[in-house]
Amino acid sequence: MDAISSNLEQPIDARILRTHRDILGAVMHVLLDEGFDAVTHPHVARVAGYSKATVYAHWPERIDLIRDAFARFADVTHHQPTGTLRDDLIGELKAFCSVITDHHLDRVLAILAERAHSVPEVAEIRDRFVAEGERPLRELLAGHVRGDRLEAATLMCSGTIIHSALMHGHTPGNNIIEYTVDTVLAGIESNR
Amino acid sequence: MDAISSNLEQPIDARILRTHRDILGAVMHVLLDEGFDAVTHPHVARVAGYSKATVYAHWPERIDLIRDAFARFADVTHHQPTGTLRDDLIGELKAFCSVITDHHLDRVLAILAERAHSVPEVAEIRDRFVAEGERPLRELLAGHVRGDRLEAATLMCSGTIIHSALMHGHTPGNNIIEYTVDTVLAGIESNR
Repeated sequence: MDAISSNLEQPIDARILRTHRDILGAVMHVLLDEGFDAVTHPHVARVAGYSKATVYAHWPERIDLIRDAFARFADVTHHQPTGTLRDDLIGELKAFCSVITDHHLDRVLAILAERAHSVPEVAEIRDRFVAEGERPLRELLAGHVRGDRLEAATLMCSGTIIHSALMHGHTPGNNIIEYTVDTVLAGIESNR
Repeated sequence: MDAISSNLEQPIDARILRTHRDILGAVMHVLLDEGFDAVTHPHVARVAGYSKATVYAHWPERIDLIRDAFARFADVTHHQPTGTLRDDLIGELKAFCSVITDHHLDRVLAILAERAHSVPEVAEIRDRFVAEGERPLRELLAGHVRGDRLEAATLMCSGTIIHSALMHGHTPGNNIIEYTVDTVLAGIESNR
């Protein structure tokens, strides 16, 4: 802490924030490029250009590093709601596809899903990450369906994107996204 | 081959079939219990109780072992169609959930999805495995929707199950499956 507080040019918070950003960015890089097992304190420190001591000081356990990297990654761009349900659902699903394309969200999710089976802490990280990612979609739908119907509608929307990306190897085209949303809306309508 | 043909008590085919079954079963066990990287000729031979030479003789490359294990695993039980679309879609999605619960299909798919990004041969295995698994669902829907609408309906049905299993950590309940199917049917109806 002395080394940090002696640098009076820059506020402490900014330095810590930068350290966090660099190290958690390195965690996500290592995870995507080399896989789950490569995320170790020494390797992350090397990739980020910090000392092992710094990494250990901020994140004593390996799972803390991974948890915080996902918390930071969860802060992605969502669609800005317009108030028109169809447009907003289509916009949110397209935003979901963009994060997959631009930030490899599909690989990140595949890694979480694969490890969640054997590491309970990873299941918790996945659950929080997925709940946070689905929140805007769920809120859009919650005005129109409730309970298990809300759950089904959310799963159908998210599932079309995730299943296409993870199991077919590509995000769905705009036509597919629009048909998915129109189907969900037809389901809502038929239940009125 | 001499050792095999000298055993006149048992037809050659039955012995080869048993060897295949044992070794490919071991591949799937190792994959599920220890992960993708643990699937090596020596380790699979040890787990299956055969010599390394036998495993190499049948499957010269590691990817051949994995490909054949998935081809064997793909031969799972599907729903027996009754001719009623709603019942058959619900039956097929419930059968899908049963394979996840009984045979860890979700873990198998997570492993494939995770590795498909870095190993092109795994992407091919996944694509074939997923296409084969989705075939009955796609055939049920193909009498009622075509083109991108068929693709969207297939993705919504499969996606509800896969997204729930991989991202929420459990297969969806029967209510959710029925709402999903009713939504897809409402979408088909609204497009007539």
